[in-house]
Amino acid sequence: MIPTITAFERSPDGGRGLARDMQVRWALEEVGQPYAVHLVSFDEMKQPAHLALHPFGQIPTYEEGDLTLFESGAIILHIAERHAGLLPEDERARTRAIAWMFSAFSTVEPPILERTTAVILERDAAWHDQRLPLVDDRIRNRLAELSRCLGGSDWLDGAFSAGDLVMVGVLRRLNRSGLLDEFPNLAAYVARGEARPAFRRAFDAQLAVARAAAAG
Amino acid sequence: MIPTITAFERSPDGGRGLARDMQVRWALEEVGQPYAVHLVSFDEMKQPAHLALHPFGQIPTYEEGDLTLFESGAIILHIAERHAGLLPEDERARTRAIAWMFSAFSTVEPPILERTTAVILERDAAWHDQRLPLVDDRIRNRLAELSRCLGGSDWLDGAFSAGDLVMVGVLRRLNRSGLLDEFPNLAAYVARGEARPAFRRAFDAQLAVARAAAAG
Repeated sequence: MIPTITAFERSPDGGRGLARDMQVRWALEEVGQPYAVHLVSFDEMKQPAHLALHPFGQIPTYEEGDLTLFESGAIILHIAERHAGLLPEDERARTRAIAWMFSAFSTVEPPILERTTAVILERDAAWHDQRLPLVDDRIRNRLAELSRCLGGSDWLDGAFSAGDLVMVGVLRRLNRSGLLDEFPNLAAYVARGEARPAFRRAFDAQLAVARAAAAG
Repeated sequence: MIPTITAFERSPDGGRGLARDMQVRWALEEVGQPYAVHLVSFDEMKQPAHLALHPFGQIPTYEEGDLTLFESGAIILHIAERHAGLLPEDERARTRAIAWMFSAFSTVEPPILERTTAVILERDAAWHDQRLPLVDDRIRNRLAELSRCLGGSDWLDGAFSAGDLVMVGVLRRLNRSGLLDEFPNLAAYVARGEARPAFRRAFDAQLAVARAAAAG
């Protein structure tokens, strides 16, 4: 049974691998699970057929037989629970890896999303230049704590896990901000994730979609 | 084995049940699991002993034998997986309930947290009054989608689940904003969650801590 995911027909990031399908593709590549991709336009995403798959009309969705799933964290956890390679076998280590997934989404990502929102939606606002440094400082607070926690380790808790996959995906949103460079061990951590063969395959796959869209 | 959680010695919300221990207490009450609470001061939270339990120096943490866990989503999932009452037995329904947990944290909560940040940290900023309506509109977009999705149902996907517990907890952050009142079915959904006996017990327990702190 080959699962089908949805992805943007024209990703707003132009193929930088920041759309939410990227981490799901990466997880599928890590565990060696082939998958099909159904591309959707912005119009289609808000139509009833897609809203039946995703309550918020977003991507990705995940269909596998009669299971329909939304929210990339839940999809990645589902994949990680059903294949070897993304969660440790030891019960406590497995629980901690899942804690890092939640941590990436609910503790590290919110200030980073706030920055994205500021840059995209409030770029022309009168307060933009003055406010951005405040947002950056909130991100720095989180990065400093994460950097201390990672220390000199390759991954957050022993072997590479779904927790690292999600955390690297979240930190990649900062690639153009310069903020990661202030924390060399975090920059190296992201580079380590991006160097994984499964990441490369996933990245190339979403890039091919963006190039086809640009050419089409 | 009675687990121990940590909570604020003096919660910044003064007992409104918006600190992150509230949802963990609620989950423990729903499944009938007794628990101990270790209260920590803001100073203690940033000391090595607490940082060893929580990488970001926050509450709650969860200790159970030799398992140490952080991040309320992960703690709630851990509780839900080990006791009956918070996740459906059907495998697909279970996976969807977990999707709602992730959805609450990564899709619904970020704009709500942005509002909290604006109100607390940027209240005196020159742009505050002009910017808040923009943030509120982003929250409204999410609430409108969630409202459509919930429709006339009591809970998001069949019986009450950990997904509802987390979503109600996230929406409660809007209690004083007036935004929930624009979506009567969501306001009723939150009231329905707050009326559960397990919610009341959890709320009263954290309120007792806040009252003791205020009196002490």
